[in-house]
Amino acid sequence: MIIVMQPAASEEQIQHVVEAVEESGLEAVLLRGEQRNVIAAIGDKREVVTEQWLASPGVERIIPILSPYKLASREASPGATPVRLDGQVVGEQKVQVIAGPCAVEDLDCTLDIAEAVKEAGAVGLRGGAYKPRTSPHTFQGLEEEGLKILHAVGRHTGLAVVTEVLDVTHVELVARYADVLQVGARNMQNFNLLTELGKAGKPVMLKRGMGATVRELLMSAEYILSQGNGNLILCERGIRSFEDSVRNVLDISAVPNIKSTSHLPVLVDPSHATGRWDLVAPLACGALAAGADGVMVEVHPQPQDALCDGAQALRPERFTRMMDDLGRLAEALGRGLASPATVESDQ
Amino acid sequence: MIIVMQPAASEEQIQHVVEAVEESGLEAVLLRGEQRNVIAAIGDKREVVTEQWLASPGVERIIPILSPYKLASREASPGATPVRLDGQVVGEQKVQVIAGPCAVEDLDCTLDIAEAVKEAGAVGLRGGAYKPRTSPHTFQGLEEEGLKILHAVGRHTGLAVVTEVLDVTHVELVARYADVLQVGARNMQNFNLLTELGKAGKPVMLKRGMGATVRELLMSAEYILSQGNGNLILCERGIRSFEDSVRNVLDISAVPNIKSTSHLPVLVDPSHATGRWDLVAPLACGALAAGADGVMVEVHPQPQDALCDGAQALRPERFTRMMDDLGRLAEALGRGLASPATVESDQ
Amino acid sequence: MIIVMQPAASEEQIQHVVEAVEESGLEAVLLRGEQRNVIAAIGDKREVVTEQWLASPGVERIIPILSPYKLASREASPGATPVRLDGQVVGEQKVQVIAGPCAVEDLDCTLDIAEAVKEAGAVGLRGGAYKPRTSPHTFQGLEEEGLKILHAVGRHTGLAVVTEVLDVTHVELVARYADVLQVGARNMQNFNLLTELGKAGKPVMLKRGMGATVRELLMSAEYILSQGNGNLILCERGIRSFEDSVRNVLDISAVPNIKSTSHLPVLVDPSHATGRWDLVAPLACGALAAGADGVMVEVHPQPQDALCDGAQALRPERFTRMMDDLGRLAEALGRGLASPATVESDQ
Amino acid sequence: MIIVMQPAASEEQIQHVVEAVEESGLEAVLLRGEQRNVIAAIGDKREVVTEQWLASPGVERIIPILSPYKLASREASPGATPVRLDGQVVGEQKVQVIAGPCAVEDLDCTLDIAEAVKEAGAVGLRGGAYKPRTSPHTFQGLEEEGLKILHAVGRHTGLAVVTEVLDVTHVELVARYADVLQVGARNMQNFNLLTELGKAGKPVMLKRGMGATVRELLMSAEYILSQGNGNLILCERGIRSFEDSVRNVLDISAVPNIKSTSHLPVLVDPSHATGRWDLVAPLACGALAAGADGVMVEVHPQPQDALCDGAQALRPERFTRMMDDLGRLAEALGRGLASPATVESDQ
Repeated sequence: MIIVMQPAASEEQIQHVVEAVEESGLEAVLLRGEQRNVIAAIGDKREVVTEQWLASPGVERIIPILSPYKLASREASPGATPVRLDGQVVGEQKVQVIAGPCAVEDLDCTLDIAEAVKEAGAVGLRGGAYKPRTSPHTFQGLEEEGLKILHAVGRHTGLAVVTEVLDVTHVELVARYADVLQVGARNMQNFNLLTELGKAGKPVMLKRGMGATVRELLMSAEYILSQGNGNLILCERGIRSFEDSVRNVLDISAVPNIKSTSHLPVLVDPSHATGRWDLVAPLACGALAAGADGVMVEVHPQPQDALCDGAQALRPERFTRMMDDLGRLAEALGRGLASPATVESDQ
Repeated sequence: MIIVMQPAASEEQIQHVVEAVEESGLEAVLLRGEQRNVIAAIGDKREVVTEQWLASPGVERIIPILSPYKLASREASPGATPVRLDGQVVGEQKVQVIAGPCAVEDLDCTLDIAEAVKEAGAVGLRGGAYKPRTSPHTFQGLEEEGLKILHAVGRHTGLAVVTEVLDVTHVELVARYADVLQVGARNMQNFNLLTELGKAGKPVMLKRGMGATVRELLMSAEYILSQGNGNLILCERGIRSFEDSVRNVLDISAVPNIKSTSHLPVLVDPSHATGRWDLVAPLACGALAAGADGVMVEVHPQPQDALCDGAQALRPERFTRMMDDLGRLAEALGRGLASPATVESDQ
Repeated sequence: MIIVMQPAASEEQIQHVVEAVEESGLEAVLLRGEQRNVIAAIGDKREVVTEQWLASPGVERIIPILSPYKLASREASPGATPVRLDGQVVGEQKVQVIAGPCAVEDLDCTLDIAEAVKEAGAVGLRGGAYKPRTSPHTFQGLEEEGLKILHAVGRHTGLAVVTEVLDVTHVELVARYADVLQVGARNMQNFNLLTELGKAGKPVMLKRGMGATVRELLMSAEYILSQGNGNLILCERGIRSFEDSVRNVLDISAVPNIKSTSHLPVLVDPSHATGRWDLVAPLACGALAAGADGVMVEVHPQPQDALCDGAQALRPERFTRMMDDLGRLAEALGRGLASPATVESDQ
Repeated sequence: MIIVMQPAASEEQIQHVVEAVEESGLEAVLLRGEQRNVIAAIGDKREVVTEQWLASPGVERIIPILSPYKLASREASPGATPVRLDGQVVGEQKVQVIAGPCAVEDLDCTLDIAEAVKEAGAVGLRGGAYKPRTSPHTFQGLEEEGLKILHAVGRHTGLAVVTEVLDVTHVELVARYADVLQVGARNMQNFNLLTELGKAGKPVMLKRGMGATVRELLMSAEYILSQGNGNLILCERGIRSFEDSVRNVLDISAVPNIKSTSHLPVLVDPSHATGRWDLVAPLACGALAAGADGVMVEVHPQPQDALCDGAQALRPERFTRMMDDLGRLAEALGRGLASPATVESDQ
């Protein structure tokens, strides 16, 4: 950590900071410059509370050198950390595609979508049983009934089931039915929920908050990892911006950016990023080519009748065409698409 | 609602949308233009799910005319809705100041701060017992012990206690000790929590998420109001921006903006907005002059030793000077500062 | 255009707006709703100044239906508009790669870079002779000397020369030496410069401002197109965001987004977008897969000695590896990379 | 400057950077830490190009300690630098108000507005003769005719004339008629224009770009100051944000923020910041209370007929009420409003 003193800081103020650094167990090196005196605090004590030193008289600025996360960093685990789920491995060579409706509406519709996306090459089924809706006046999800449908359809098709946990009180229930527990963007900093998911042991998909930096995403990952759960997949799904022709701006640079600093696998969700179905396929292709471990998209047979977010859902035919493109791109990069599992009922 | 059709939309597609509008109980008026055909859907059915019509073939854009919130809007309640708490009224003429440490650290320190801010004119005491910290490696709050300290200090000084509820499982516990239940910025769209707080009946302070629009803040308010709890105060605390010399950008326009569209009182928290103690007093003055019903700021006697967010805390002497400025500004605008309650122990 | 009246608007105010609409030559249709009265103004008069109707008593909001640009829109020209430059066609099937140093430093270095990037498959040479530097204390470019170097190297290698025009007074001079006149992000709304470039007749590359929306980019394109110059290429190069680990956030959704609304070709510049050389190749691949007509990247043999922006420059070896990936991706999508021109000196 | 090496950086790479630092004339101090080695480069060489060291093998990050601007910083000039213009002093105790139409439309209208705003207490007259319009299809200003009107009205009323210079070719012409040469937000990084204005010697008002940080604004100020022109006023006018109910977000924290780091006076323009006349007066009051040296607002007698930006203009009556509030606030803070000049024709 580097502590920059104000030009007018007194000798006494400088010594006061040097002592505070040493008391915290770090080594202090005072560098005297022409315009500023700077104190370097050497040592790895990321748990030391240091931000408040900013409040010490004479301090102008504090600059951390080490990233605030440890377990999520490449230094903790130089290789990639693949996540195993139901026969699939996310974070190795193959590209994984997860698809499904925004919300689970009923068994038949969910089954139809699942079979269609599996046929096209998806390996996971997404769908919400609990829906965080901006308005209290709109459809809030089928709740446990939705979980049961997802579970049944997942078992029948062999698709891994990914669904959102909205609340700390639901973790156990959702874990009973799902293969991957998803943390939605609005809950990325719901730290109690993250801690519970860390304890649950099941694979977790952590979506980036729309107002969160990559560093904050990795700090939230740290909450889950610090409970001993290393089955963690990150998901970029767009961030807030002044651009008003899309719902959010997909931060595609987050893919190589996270990969340079962390060992965790990264998916991209172009459906929620843009809110526009016509942009989903090009951005899914872009995400794959930029190095994403997979993509997650919304599919619905009659988007205009969907109970939520129809505007961003692909029709199955359009999804199939997208999968063809993804397949060709994945081959060109020497990766290939992951193959759907074979289930007994298929035989 | 206005539905704009694509230039190439067929007659059949247009009729399909007209029928969908009419089936939902709205009146459809088709306007034929030179470049675009437009369908106006007339009627107040904010609960109708309409976004998915975007997915209908031939539709280019959907423009809502009515705001998506009802109970939070000026139309629902043309006058202001003051919130009564412990002898104080937030949202009427007088300016309310709430102050206190970021986190409750111990009884003595909390009491000292409370007495100092009351002496300077504050009417509420803020302090966190449960702290949502970005890093799992930092101080997480005293939990129930902290609530007890806040309660005791509040009773002793007559200051209304404002403290954060982090989780739906804590609502009952926190409500037992606090006068105002605060929803933090990271929880602004934790809809289960909002619903529970709507049922709890106690005054709620809802902070704007750092990635949330004013409209989304009011939609979250709608969750609380729709449970019958009208004791609701909004709080602007800065939004995410590319400007990197402050933690967030205080959106001061949100104050008159919310007041033009909603009847709810609005406070401003310049401490969290900027993360810099040296900007707190000027922004508190700015907020008051722009029409805020009050301000909430962090105060700590030794910011450099604070267990959290010391960099943004005012020392009591600086807080007192700020209160003098606020008092003079409030008088100049014919409003005045609210007076602290008198408690028996004061006599 | 849709004009939404306030709930409390009087009959007289409504009639006043209806008359103003009709006086401007548009047809007015008054729609009476439960909560709001709305006036639809029908007709295509994009040149009518309408925003000020917002200031009419009783008006709440004005919603345009038609995009504010005409010549840049798909309606003006339903097919794509390829730009021809020096034997190359930007905006058709083949992917174009433009590469070169941030600033022209001297003849030898420029020639070395040009030969290396041509060898790897680039078809254009970028390089700045006039550099818009944030600080007045840093290198500002070789000016006309730099233009002469670019011209000589372009002729020698057969690469099309792309270079920035900083100022309206330089248009003629730069046009004498360059094949494509680039408008930098900071000049995207320098309307006098855009008008002059519209008159210059030479191909123009217009970069998106870092604080500009896609709609504003297309409005700036309209300035150039309205002078009769249709040889226009757009370039996405990142927008401002709160994410602080990259210089700007590459808005990859702008690629399919612009293509859905405009007929102009779109390049992507991942070097300026991120400011980090390690993210350039993945984002170039992502841009191609998302549908960009080409990419423009910075290359320098000794980035650590570059006179500007070394941190974002690829070394020639790294560039060559990126070109291999781009080539494979372009093949997979049935497009292919454009081939460099053959020049006589090559024979 | 602090240079952070990658964990895997070799001894050779470290020595290479140490040598590069020393060759540039700075002193290098190598700090060996547990996780990272860090090189402190000591000395004040802001003109040294250092960013490219990021491209040196083994370097992870470079952190500047000194601000990149010198002349604009408090260190260069610890006290405030007031700007004198036509009998007024901007940047001392008194609050200055500048008002007028967006664009000059004709002599009568301009004179009426000028007399009204002077009567209410304004000391400057704003008005555009050259208008940077997003669309080429809208009113572009009266050009030199507009300058003559402004000049005549300024002389007649004693108001200082503030008007925008759009282009480097107009500097001399505009300087002939105006008291203050305004650089618009879109030109904040038009460095040639800044340099010319630095040479022109007349007072300059530099508006912050809507996508520019405070640091970049001060770097642009440095361009003007480095030409020897110290008559420089900065103006905050809103920055881009995801909040969509206002045109831009007024960054009110920029006022105390700039004042803590620079000696230059700061005005606030709430009209352009929000684009909504109903928010102008509260934000003008907020700006004053936050420490702005003055405000600049748009006034028009018939906003609904204004040729540009009518939606953000105050009617004269509303402006007069705002001035009453500003006057009371300025008195409360011990500052007062500046008094308009007395001209002979007034006697």
